[in-house]
Amino acid sequence: VSDASLPLEDALILSLAGCLPPTRNTRLAIGDDAAAITLPDGNLLLVTTDMLMEDVHFRLSWDDLPALGWKALAQNLSDIAAMGGTPTHAVIAIALPAAWAPHNAQALYRGIATLAAQAEVDVIGGDTIRSAGPLTLTLTVLGRVSPNELLTRRGARPGDALYVTGTLGRAAAGLRVLEDGRPIPDDLAAAVDAQLRPQPRLVAARAIASSRLATAMMDLSDGLATDLHRLCRASSVGAVVDGDAVPVDPVVAACCRWAANAPGDPLALALTGGEDFELLIAAPPAAAAALHTLLAPLPLTRIGECTAAPEVQLRRGAQLAPLAWGFTHFT
Amino acid sequence: VSDASLPLEDALILSLAGCLPPTRNTRLAIGDDAAAITLPDGNLLLVTTDMLMEDVHFRLSWDDLPALGWKALAQNLSDIAAMGGTPTHAVIAIALPAAWAPHNAQALYRGIATLAAQAEVDVIGGDTIRSAGPLTLTLTVLGRVSPNELLTRRGARPGDALYVTGTLGRAAAGLRVLEDGRPIPDDLAAAVDAQLRPQPRLVAARAIASSRLATAMMDLSDGLATDLHRLCRASSVGAVVDGDAVPVDPVVAACCRWAANAPGDPLALALTGGEDFELLIAAPPAAAAALHTLLAPLPLTRIGECTAAPEVQLRRGAQLAPLAWGFTHFT
Repeated sequence: VSDASLPLEDALILSLAGCLPPTRNTRLAIGDDAAAITLPDGNLLLVTTDMLMEDVHFRLSWDDLPALGWKALAQNLSDIAAMGGTPTHAVIAIALPAAWAPHNAQALYRGIATLAAQAEVDVIGGDTIRSAGPLTLTLTVLGRVSPNELLTRRGARPGDALYVTGTLGRAAAGLRVLEDGRPIPDDLAAAVDAQLRPQPRLVAARAIASSRLATAMMDLSDGLATDLHRLCRASSVGAVVDGDAVPVDPVVAACCRWAANAPGDPLALALTGGEDFELLIAAPPAAAAALHTLLAPLPLTRIGECTAAPEVQLRRGAQLAPLAWGFTHFT
Repeated sequence: VSDASLPLEDALILSLAGCLPPTRNTRLAIGDDAAAITLPDGNLLLVTTDMLMEDVHFRLSWDDLPALGWKALAQNLSDIAAMGGTPTHAVIAIALPAAWAPHNAQALYRGIATLAAQAEVDVIGGDTIRSAGPLTLTLTVLGRVSPNELLTRRGARPGDALYVTGTLGRAAAGLRVLEDGRPIPDDLAAAVDAQLRPQPRLVAARAIASSRLATAMMDLSDGLATDLHRLCRASSVGAVVDGDAVPVDPVVAACCRWAANAPGDPLALALTGGEDFELLIAAPPAAAAALHTLLAPLPLTRIGECTAAPEVQLRRGAQLAPLAWGFTHFT
């Protein structure tokens, strides 16, 4: 697979990484959900950072501020979880709009604090500035994992089965409902909640890591159609996804019926919609029963398998076609 | 000292910290140059984060992009150094203006890479997004220090002497020259260089920490008139600064003569101008000779002393007057 096939975000990150000197004291640098540094006692320190900017990742007209703080932390916790780790500490850098009163910033912090307390993460510092433009938040989260429980994007092998936790498309459906602007119908409230207040799979991810049954793992932040390409590239494998097996959340079909601006095809929304923060897992087929038992009652769905051929393909009925790199924020 | 006397930035940070749950596994959280976490081997992991936003902290019309990358890393390295630590790893979150070509981002990264290589810091990851507004950079830097060499803002005692490294006011003079907009005269080029490409005091800070001669230390990022108040509050002491002793850089007087928009008083610029990234140190008077020997040939100047009375005062000739909280970016 040539780099010319990469979407802009991935190509730019590769080119920027090429400007940096080689790392000396690092187990895992750019190119995974989090970086990993070996600590003196042999365990790994995980580090991840995410920037959220108004009108790129959210609109203040949609969000209540505690939800925004929650989500900013949740997506970083999800990155640590996706490496098999336990998040431990967070720092917050925030650029506050010039017109904001202190109570707005406090509301946002309370959302961060609620999830931090629940996940037993210490918020240990930050930087607070006045923005010359949009509200901008950068959270950096640290975590820990033992080296034999570290899961990366790199370990998948041809023949491994591919699984996702939970259901897909809820957060994307919620985004469509929010963009639509009409009052939110009761049967779509769960989708909006998934978009605004995602629940990172901390417990499931740790269970998978400590079982050592998986060969690769990542979180679905940009949608399966993008993130599966990333896992396959990192592992030097391809994949075939069975479209009929993808666990499309029932709310997606309801959203497609209701929202004028939603694509008509629930599967397309589930494949290309980001921010579900479910886990994508590769594991040998023999591990299937043990994985299901491990995660129950959380749904775990086999959506396809890894292949030696490097293509990433989607099977719908009898047809096999390339699965295009999908949705990304970076447009 | 009541909180009502605090400038807006410090008051807001206190109020935000109050929204967060108490930390459980943290040696030092919000309120110093960096946070500190105890590692399994007993050493401390230091963490600091800084957000830089276009038209708040810099203007793209002034900066060459490698210098901007350099400075973003330099100010974080300075925070780690100010705790007595050695910086080891950095992560970069960046929001790129929509119109930027990849070579602009690469130029900025090369500036980060140059300083990272010089300081032996691994850049291990990040996040890259398209900005809906200004260029925004958040760097988070990790470092390490042994617990008995950790220096905070908290340890100063009444009677301790106060020192600064180097000279003050250069970076602020450089800012005035850049804001003036006329061509930069040769004799002010050093000031502009200090503003655009600051040199964090990594070696000096480590020497002070390992000597264990100092009781408190911080870096001068917002100017002595602001940062000394912070050190005094954290240590529950006051201070008297001898205005005649403050090592005002000679370029400051040259700048005041040249630049129409500079204050007429070089001492005022040196006290209130930020971004010198020199070290402010408290140490018992008996340590004076040893500290000078330790840092030579770097200038170390005694600028005053800590007092039991909580006021922070400035002596000019025979007059003693309160030293007002000075310049801050947060206006």
